[in-house]
Amino acid sequence: MEASMVVDEVESLEDIRRLLVGAPGPDLDAGEQADRREAQLTKPPGSLGRLEDLARWLSLWQGRHPPTMDRPAARLFAGNHGVARQGVSAFPAAVTAQMVSNFLAGGAAINQLCRALSVSFSADAIELDRPTADFTEAAAMTEAEFLAAFNRGMVSVDRTMDVLALGEMGIGNTTAAAALACGLFGGAAADWTGPGTGLVGAELAHKTKVVERAVARHRDAAGDPLELMRRLGGRELAAIAGAVTAARLLRVPVVLDGFICTAAAAPLGLVDPGALDHCQAGHVSAEPGHRRLLSVLNKEPLLNLGLRLGEGSGAVLAIAVLRAAVACHTGMATFAEAGVATP
Amino acid sequence: MEASMVVDEVESLEDIRRLLVGAPGPDLDAGEQADRREAQLTKPPGSLGRLEDLARWLSLWQGRHPPTMDRPAARLFAGNHGVARQGVSAFPAAVTAQMVSNFLAGGAAINQLCRALSVSFSADAIELDRPTADFTEAAAMTEAEFLAAFNRGMVSVDRTMDVLALGEMGIGNTTAAAALACGLFGGAAADWTGPGTGLVGAELAHKTKVVERAVARHRDAAGDPLELMRRLGGRELAAIAGAVTAARLLRVPVVLDGFICTAAAAPLGLVDPGALDHCQAGHVSAEPGHRRLLSVLNKEPLLNLGLRLGEGSGAVLAIAVLRAAVACHTGMATFAEAGVATP
Repeated sequence: MEASMVVDEVESLEDIRRLLVGAPGPDLDAGEQADRREAQLTKPPGSLGRLEDLARWLSLWQGRHPPTMDRPAARLFAGNHGVARQGVSAFPAAVTAQMVSNFLAGGAAINQLCRALSVSFSADAIELDRPTADFTEAAAMTEAEFLAAFNRGMVSVDRTMDVLALGEMGIGNTTAAAALACGLFGGAAADWTGPGTGLVGAELAHKTKVVERAVARHRDAAGDPLELMRRLGGRELAAIAGAVTAARLLRVPVVLDGFICTAAAAPLGLVDPGALDHCQAGHVSAEPGHRRLLSVLNKEPLLNLGLRLGEGSGAVLAIAVLRAAVACHTGMATFAEAGVATP
Repeated sequence: MEASMVVDEVESLEDIRRLLVGAPGPDLDAGEQADRREAQLTKPPGSLGRLEDLARWLSLWQGRHPPTMDRPAARLFAGNHGVARQGVSAFPAAVTAQMVSNFLAGGAAINQLCRALSVSFSADAIELDRPTADFTEAAAMTEAEFLAAFNRGMVSVDRTMDVLALGEMGIGNTTAAAALACGLFGGAAADWTGPGTGLVGAELAHKTKVVERAVARHRDAAGDPLELMRRLGGRELAAIAGAVTAARLLRVPVVLDGFICTAAAAPLGLVDPGALDHCQAGHVSAEPGHRRLLSVLNKEPLLNLGLRLGEGSGAVLAIAVLRAAVACHTGMATFAEAGVATP
């Protein structure tokens, strides 16, 4: 594999900031070629709605025209969370490892979706036997732990991918996502805390209190998005942030999944305002904080199907829409080729 | 093919009413089996949102468990409209036939979508050289013409289809759909009339006036949905209504496309309140009357991507969601199989 096919690992938070600020922008020439072709296709202008926008977006961020959608990939990261011992999930923490076995055996929802939609899949379980610290008491990760997880996400991406769908698994990680989003964007803990795997009533109220305590404890880092992710995130969130960063450097467009995945990417957009321009929101989940977060990030989700599973399920499903966009953009006849009259 | 694989043709509007009222309902036993399996799968209950509902819905209306999604089919009907001479489209009427050639040559958007999503496709052009009468002046079709088109839709369906996506093409047919919807459900012509292929300003105002005149002329048929479709519809709309009816009789679930396709099915739901229970709205289109019509019919669309092309494009795209639903429902491991702890 040639050097430019993968990215170098980062050694500090400062390295990450430098990568984000220096990352390549959209390929405007490829975008212009997409516009030119789109205008000639046998349909009323604009009638394919977001499919037209997506063909252009893929051209811009793949840096080529025509865009391709032959090799979509999904990457799932799993981690365990010290905060899980506070009783913030309907499931025990052991389920993270059990579900990773399920991913590897091909029995989970994400396996079926990847198979049905011809998306390559791999899952990376990051030190499940070493949960993060309980962030209501201390920083979730040391800087070295955070960077190791971030790098693990970085090296999971390569230039053969047409698009990268990201997902996660980790009992307790809607709590981490809520704390991180609240720390990054403010508001009350209740604005960001939702049922996760199915909490209601007193259990949900307890989870909200846990988020509130966590955010209060790490308030002194509020102005530093990456430092906040180290303290309030988890290994799978750090890996997702690393994958999003590497994808930008390697010209691989990204589809984000639900609340946790979006919260993991959000700090990057605060470091550099354009850092998430190569990312689409695959869907808006039923977890209430997700809609709020997408709105703050100015992302319009592709799907709205009431999913709240994670695993990358909504992101992979959205790949069907991207594939359709590329199929129409590249395969349709032009008015001239088909002998169809224009308006 | 055995007798039950296809349906007998209808010979009168009364025949259609009888078929609709006597059509089979949901297979509750298959639905119960779907519920039972869904509850055991390795995910928090309800976390797959509408995918779970769709697996159940397919079981109910295919009349079997597990539901299948191996042989989805798309059928496109094309027709020409006398009202086109009133200048209600940005494109000339000749484009209907030109686009049918494009469908047959594989150059249209719907061809790319069917190819990308492995959906079988065929297009049926119904007497393009004999447009319907201009319904601002007379009934669009004689009863014989209406029944012939309806039957053409009926026989296009067979039991080998796992699901049927319906689509249409016909210069002038958003005008027919607007007139039909307005005649069926009341309100002002402006509530139902939209840009279609791209009309704005004075052209859109003119189109609205045309719809208003058409509805006023056929007001005496307002209480009779099928008669109203004969007078204000078109051959492709009648064929779609026939296909929806046959699909119900043959236990083939249906995905409706946009405004025109939904308007074509709407009269059936007024003849019998459950007549469209085997139909999903594939998407909500950018044509403003479509959202209004879905709301009246109490249908929640699967996708919202700003499409306004027709051809069945939104319905076929939604098949990706149905396929994902069946893949998860049938392929996922149970908690017991995977050794995953339950809450």
